[in-house]
Amino acid sequence: MIYQPWNALEAPRFTGPRTYARLPYLSGYQNPDLSEVEAAVFGMPWDGGASFRGGARLGPEGIRSASGMIRTYNPAQRVQVFGNISTIDYGDALTVPGYIEDTLLRIEEFIVPLIEAKVVPIGMGGDHSVTLAELRALAKRYGPLGLVHFDAHTDLNDLYNNKPYSHGTFLRRALEENIIAADRFIQLGIRGPLYSEEDVHLPASLGVESLSWLTCVELGFHALIERIYERVGDRPTFLTFDIDFVDAGACPGTGTPEVAGPTAFETMRILRALSRINFIGFDVVEVAPVYDEPGQVTSLFAANIVFEMLSMLALRKL
Amino acid sequence: MIYQPWNALEAPRFTGPRTYARLPYLSGYQNPDLSEVEAAVFGMPWDGGASFRGGARLGPEGIRSASGMIRTYNPAQRVQVFGNISTIDYGDALTVPGYIEDTLLRIEEFIVPLIEAKVVPIGMGGDHSVTLAELRALAKRYGPLGLVHFDAHTDLNDLYNNKPYSHGTFLRRALEENIIAADRFIQLGIRGPLYSEEDVHLPASLGVESLSWLTCVELGFHALIERIYERVGDRPTFLTFDIDFVDAGACPGTGTPEVAGPTAFETMRILRALSRINFIGFDVVEVAPVYDEPGQVTSLFAANIVFEMLSMLALRKL
Amino acid sequence: MIYQPWNALEAPRFTGPRTYARLPYLSGYQNPDLSEVEAAVFGMPWDGGASFRGGARLGPEGIRSASGMIRTYNPAQRVQVFGNISTIDYGDALTVPGYIEDTLLRIEEFIVPLIEAKVVPIGMGGDHSVTLAELRALAKRYGPLGLVHFDAHTDLNDLYNNKPYSHGTFLRRALEENIIAADRFIQLGIRGPLYSEEDVHLPASLGVESLSWLTCVELGFHALIERIYERVGDRPTFLTFDIDFVDAGACPGTGTPEVAGPTAFETMRILRALSRINFIGFDVVEVAPVYDEPGQVTSLFAANIVFEMLSMLALRKL
Amino acid sequence: MIYQPWNALEAPRFTGPRTYARLPYLSGYQNPDLSEVEAAVFGMPWDGGASFRGGARLGPEGIRSASGMIRTYNPAQRVQVFGNISTIDYGDALTVPGYIEDTLLRIEEFIVPLIEAKVVPIGMGGDHSVTLAELRALAKRYGPLGLVHFDAHTDLNDLYNNKPYSHGTFLRRALEENIIAADRFIQLGIRGPLYSEEDVHLPASLGVESLSWLTCVELGFHALIERIYERVGDRPTFLTFDIDFVDAGACPGTGTPEVAGPTAFETMRILRALSRINFIGFDVVEVAPVYDEPGQVTSLFAANIVFEMLSMLALRKL
Amino acid sequence: MIYQPWNALEAPRFTGPRTYARLPYLSGYQNPDLSEVEAAVFGMPWDGGASFRGGARLGPEGIRSASGMIRTYNPAQRVQVFGNISTIDYGDALTVPGYIEDTLLRIEEFIVPLIEAKVVPIGMGGDHSVTLAELRALAKRYGPLGLVHFDAHTDLNDLYNNKPYSHGTFLRRALEENIIAADRFIQLGIRGPLYSEEDVHLPASLGVESLSWLTCVELGFHALIERIYERVGDRPTFLTFDIDFVDAGACPGTGTPEVAGPTAFETMRILRALSRINFIGFDVVEVAPVYDEPGQVTSLFAANIVFEMLSMLALRKL
Amino acid sequence: MIYQPWNALEAPRFTGPRTYARLPYLSGYQNPDLSEVEAAVFGMPWDGGASFRGGARLGPEGIRSASGMIRTYNPAQRVQVFGNISTIDYGDALTVPGYIEDTLLRIEEFIVPLIEAKVVPIGMGGDHSVTLAELRALAKRYGPLGLVHFDAHTDLNDLYNNKPYSHGTFLRRALEENIIAADRFIQLGIRGPLYSEEDVHLPASLGVESLSWLTCVELGFHALIERIYERVGDRPTFLTFDIDFVDAGACPGTGTPEVAGPTAFETMRILRALSRINFIGFDVVEVAPVYDEPGQVTSLFAANIVFEMLSMLALRKL
Repeated sequence: MIYQPWNALEAPRFTGPRTYARLPYLSGYQNPDLSEVEAAVFGMPWDGGASFRGGARLGPEGIRSASGMIRTYNPAQRVQVFGNISTIDYGDALTVPGYIEDTLLRIEEFIVPLIEAKVVPIGMGGDHSVTLAELRALAKRYGPLGLVHFDAHTDLNDLYNNKPYSHGTFLRRALEENIIAADRFIQLGIRGPLYSEEDVHLPASLGVESLSWLTCVELGFHALIERIYERVGDRPTFLTFDIDFVDAGACPGTGTPEVAGPTAFETMRILRALSRINFIGFDVVEVAPVYDEPGQVTSLFAANIVFEMLSMLALRKL
Repeated sequence: MIYQPWNALEAPRFTGPRTYARLPYLSGYQNPDLSEVEAAVFGMPWDGGASFRGGARLGPEGIRSASGMIRTYNPAQRVQVFGNISTIDYGDALTVPGYIEDTLLRIEEFIVPLIEAKVVPIGMGGDHSVTLAELRALAKRYGPLGLVHFDAHTDLNDLYNNKPYSHGTFLRRALEENIIAADRFIQLGIRGPLYSEEDVHLPASLGVESLSWLTCVELGFHALIERIYERVGDRPTFLTFDIDFVDAGACPGTGTPEVAGPTAFETMRILRALSRINFIGFDVVEVAPVYDEPGQVTSLFAANIVFEMLSMLALRKL
Repeated sequence: MIYQPWNALEAPRFTGPRTYARLPYLSGYQNPDLSEVEAAVFGMPWDGGASFRGGARLGPEGIRSASGMIRTYNPAQRVQVFGNISTIDYGDALTVPGYIEDTLLRIEEFIVPLIEAKVVPIGMGGDHSVTLAELRALAKRYGPLGLVHFDAHTDLNDLYNNKPYSHGTFLRRALEENIIAADRFIQLGIRGPLYSEEDVHLPASLGVESLSWLTCVELGFHALIERIYERVGDRPTFLTFDIDFVDAGACPGTGTPEVAGPTAFETMRILRALSRINFIGFDVVEVAPVYDEPGQVTSLFAANIVFEMLSMLALRKL
Repeated sequence: MIYQPWNALEAPRFTGPRTYARLPYLSGYQNPDLSEVEAAVFGMPWDGGASFRGGARLGPEGIRSASGMIRTYNPAQRVQVFGNISTIDYGDALTVPGYIEDTLLRIEEFIVPLIEAKVVPIGMGGDHSVTLAELRALAKRYGPLGLVHFDAHTDLNDLYNNKPYSHGTFLRRALEENIIAADRFIQLGIRGPLYSEEDVHLPASLGVESLSWLTCVELGFHALIERIYERVGDRPTFLTFDIDFVDAGACPGTGTPEVAGPTAFETMRILRALSRINFIGFDVVEVAPVYDEPGQVTSLFAANIVFEMLSMLALRKL
Repeated sequence: MIYQPWNALEAPRFTGPRTYARLPYLSGYQNPDLSEVEAAVFGMPWDGGASFRGGARLGPEGIRSASGMIRTYNPAQRVQVFGNISTIDYGDALTVPGYIEDTLLRIEEFIVPLIEAKVVPIGMGGDHSVTLAELRALAKRYGPLGLVHFDAHTDLNDLYNNKPYSHGTFLRRALEENIIAADRFIQLGIRGPLYSEEDVHLPASLGVESLSWLTCVELGFHALIERIYERVGDRPTFLTFDIDFVDAGACPGTGTPEVAGPTAFETMRILRALSRINFIGFDVVEVAPVYDEPGQVTSLFAANIVFEMLSMLALRKL
Repeated sequence: MIYQPWNALEAPRFTGPRTYARLPYLSGYQNPDLSEVEAAVFGMPWDGGASFRGGARLGPEGIRSASGMIRTYNPAQRVQVFGNISTIDYGDALTVPGYIEDTLLRIEEFIVPLIEAKVVPIGMGGDHSVTLAELRALAKRYGPLGLVHFDAHTDLNDLYNNKPYSHGTFLRRALEENIIAADRFIQLGIRGPLYSEEDVHLPASLGVESLSWLTCVELGFHALIERIYERVGDRPTFLTFDIDFVDAGACPGTGTPEVAGPTAFETMRILRALSRINFIGFDVVEVAPVYDEPGQVTSLFAANIVFEMLSMLALRKL
């Protein structure tokens, strides 16, 4: 059996309760049989770790709403996605408003059955702190992970408000917990004001390769792609995509937008070039629909990012 | 087995794919076992019959989104609803953009299994033309129905654009098809400019009792309720609630709003007083989320209307 | 010939360039033949006199857009309006951004041909300062006018920013210019914080009758209506309706909203009771669509107010 | 010296950085001299305790923005407020996203200097959990407090997500901590679906008087006011105003709106009648500007609520 | 006589009922004298053929509203447009909500007088299905037309919901009806998920040249332009511009947006290079103002597209 | 003493009354001691000079709100800004709604103390007419200024509505008053429809160098930068940045947007290359938050522009 979406030529795309791409919903809280599932899209509705504007707790709802636009074949990658990769909507992790540490535990527990069943997890945030939970769950199985990190911010600060967990500090924790390998960690798209010159050197001081968007542009497309492949190598790697990687004008529906970043077209081109990396998990985070345009452009972009992640899995099967 | 929503004290209300009140989703297109179902909430995403602004095709999505606010017990009616009335979300009928007659047929076919299984249907529109499909399906079983019709408009015009079907003409068709009984049909809340003095007399000329909102106010609450009970009697009756019954300021998210109508409080008081009527089906229509406030007040109001309808079923079981 | 709107049963209400109620457009700047015109609706797109938020320069566009909802017969007043009162859309006065005094002159000149042709002017604002221009034009013909003034604010301040003209001072100017008669001037709906106790006594000190909304409620409907009739008497009177008269929740699309005012229903009931007053001109002002709900409720309300004004003219012809 | 707002007749109301009513800003984090201050308005920007939609962290910004509409004299209460009660904007407490318990501690510490200086605190939320911090700070000085609680919800649940602190449980904690006195605690406006019949009896079982909005209406205005005075008596009392007390149509900008509640006019009438109660602190909470109308009606209403609270202090000085 | 807009230096651009660019309105339903008209802009307010989100029925109103920004001279093309090309606003075709086939007939009939009078029609949609009506009207005169088709979608599907007419199938009908010539038909900008690999080959199988946006970028500007000229040749050609050609971030106000497309600047550059093609008609479709940004960017872009189309006509006269 | 913002790692960025970047507020109306101030950010809340849409009077509030995102170090320019350049928020000039000439005088007077104290003024508009006041104030000290003018429009028209002052004519006045030197004046980004071919030649006829955006693209980055340096030379120069320079899709929140302009990335790259020019004052104008996206992208962009201006001052100190 292959789990796949409802046919949009027969069922208008605006019909039915919204799951991602109208996929079958097998709730992670009902002990679903995952034996015929290859990939699971799920939500992490949490915005308690956001330092400026909230709203990402409704990110999964927004992405699911806009994902009615997603069909089944990816012409840019020349691959059939649905019908090929058996995919479900696994529902949302149960977060705990006001308690970030409990929330991270619950998300981790929610994902463990997927990993045990060799289902590739594709998370929808939620503010970026939720990624820590995914990394913890995956590292248990795979050891320290490589990380390709699309973002305008390094998320490597030590403390925020004198507290260890937030969307700006979670990758420092991940390094400390040894669930990601600094020497296989690359981040791209960094820009915007910082607190001090020290912040510029922070990633390097932690052994992390950090490319500002300006550096990405100066490198050029091919050199950039090469850098990423070289950095992460062949071993298991996670891809985390913070929607604020994209220029604020193109993806305004997020908590801490930064201007003067990549266009949607440039973003897609980079993302699609990474399909040969050994990704064992993915997420797209920081979608805050209350700050999106009425036309839901940010949610739509995120829905497409998820589709590209699924396309990478499909390409791998060819 | 009693179908009921997920417990909101354990699972935050903003989690999971949106079904009505987070009820289990048993899609009407997957031959669900309805033997243990008492009521089914479903969507009719259609706005092709709207004469001014569209947007009601996303009404079901909007109501489901706001229905996270709905809990299980109705303190105003002193009745436990969920846990008592086994209820599902039955999904959406597959409409056909651009083809109103085909759409009505599809909606009718979608509902038939519910009626055959003695499940009470509770529809979410969609522009008001969809109600014709529900009435057709129900009249097959029950014969000509009584009708309690909350609306700012009579919907009794003969033609619109020289065509028989639209949200302003469907009740004329229902009378012609003898699926509603004029002498058991009462409408309330009528107001707003008309096309001519003839329009004032139109309902009476068709044998329909039509109360303007001004008349409702002058009658007073108790006399109004009595009039409704007297009109519809004991036999099977349908309740159709057009959200533009409510004052445009309180429920702005609709296609043809009318000002100077009842408040939310007045509306609820009337609705709750009708629980002893022999309702065999319900709907709430004309919710257009694109015109709603950012706070989703119209969708929230509609979600509460559905909850009151379910409460009537629960009261009947006491 | 009777100028009237396009038939909405044949031409959908969302079609065609937006004039008020889809009336014929006879631009005031093209020397139109007004001999067969009885009433003219026109815009005064100006917000330079606003003390808090702007946006009323687009009031006429907003009201015209929402006025697609207006039909031809007024069932509450039992009168045929269009087809009976020959009415045109006269276009907009050409305002001068940044120059309030020039703007007032231009508006006045724009209206004069109407008054000379005995056409009843019905203005759409624009911030409230525009009313001064209308009063000047009308007083030239009729002498000092009576005034029925719906508003949350007295608009009787002497200076604003040490300047004579603004939406909070224009009625002080009108009194000084003797174009309105203090003893035939009544204002109702006043509420909200003031600058000092003196402000409470200001209207009385100028000979103006000023009723707070609280006083209106305490008087009761019938006494209130009587007070208005008594005050203005039989002589020529202007009706100016500031949309902030209505509770801010019901008409949020305005520059200086005040909470805790009348509902839409209460407002309409008062307005409809004034049809026997000798009104020789009308306006509705302070509609700011940028602050309106997506559902255009404020513009829709204003469009209905204009329709009620036209209905008064129709009643007078019976 | 009397701290008071900038004169709006000289400085347009839309000018300058937004403090509440353009009051002088004496930041609570800069050891301000409070010796000539009688009342302090401050923000508690926190939404981590919200169970449905977030956004209340920007409540203080929203109320400050809309408060440009607030002037200095209250004509409904016939009292000069500013110029009489020396008032400041004390800034915002520093909350800790993701950590509710730390946040409550920081808010409490922020308020203590006000209480020590006998300055009446007037808080702007923030989700309702912040009130617990205020009650803790005030109870240290005054002992167990009386409480007048305007709200659609009881906020008396024991646990939420198995956790003790949230906007739905904080008053249970307050009772357990003995910082409010159950026998001097009255809540009004309760409505909306509950989880079970038990929830109806919960307040009484804890010794709290709880009036649904329906009960308030049935009691009538005078009996309601009497009940409140009787309940709280002469001793120190806190007034907490959850903006969802008001009907969702009138104040949509909030996280957990409930329909069919009081109008703005009814609300103001009740509030103004309570001026003789011995209030030693106030707050208005749950304002979420991202869900407000473009016209900022909810924020404006909250700004007026704060002004009414200040007016009570001014009346007491007469 | 040359029909042209009102001078914006004398009449502020926000004044008067909104016609396109404030052009004179000669309604197509009033048998206008077209003898001195060279081009006519008109609306086709219809969204019944949309497969995802509706709202395009208000496209003509949105474009007219934003077109206040349009002036008379095109500096990029170095040509005087208004004052040179006598242009009118011809009003809107009367569509029939719910009945796509009748709607197409009415649009066709509405346009015929223009074609007979040798007036170049420039349509404003409406969902893309309306273009079929224009092609039918024009092909009667010119025979099978060449087609330059800007779009993210091929619109060449056979059936949608088992029905022949929709915005995704109308060009299949046009090919079948032989009103466009496949060998003179080129589409550009195609992107986004498809249903199957077959969809990739569909245009070629029908003899249509279809360029994905990625292909356009790889071709480069000059080669792309050459391909278009080569394809359509010298014979009569129609230009249809679906606003979703543009990247969703730049033109979000549309029903089925696709991300990662051309910028506004790239789009304009391509469009302006096509002025030597023998265009005998134009349209811009799929503008859905309810999904646009508050700043009306999509409508403004469409208003500029119309101006560029008029500029092509002006260039041809030089 | 160095005036600088509150530390965002300790005080969440959404806390406190909004000043620019949470800088200390030293109101220009309270005779502040400016001896230790190097730069002052201030608002000019005025939109009376706008020819299409208003709303720029709330530009300063919008920019301050979004500026919570601004931190202290500029990594693109490798310079510490805050902590280095002592900066304050100087509040807003008191404008006079309806009176443009008085408003310009008041703004000029407001700035004079800054210039006398050798504080660099950085203004936030307000429609573009406010720049005239700044230029007048600065020219008194420095003589005729050089001008680098980012804009889609030349703002060099002679009259608007037959009046001398507006946002489209103020630079003509500045040339006439000899407060800017035509031969040291360069404008870039010009695009959009004009009134006639004469308008194309207008800047040259006045001795001004005017580069359309198309010309800028054709020149290429380095030649463009060189042209700007060459034009303005070493003498005192003002930088005025109209937000409509940026493509309307990227900065929609403005009164007269123009499509097909530079991206945010291209804009920043140009701006950052100008740091060696002898700027003695700056402004960013035409931000109209009511037309911005819910995500405040335009205000955020403007807040970053201000930060880049401050960065230029910091670079100069190195």
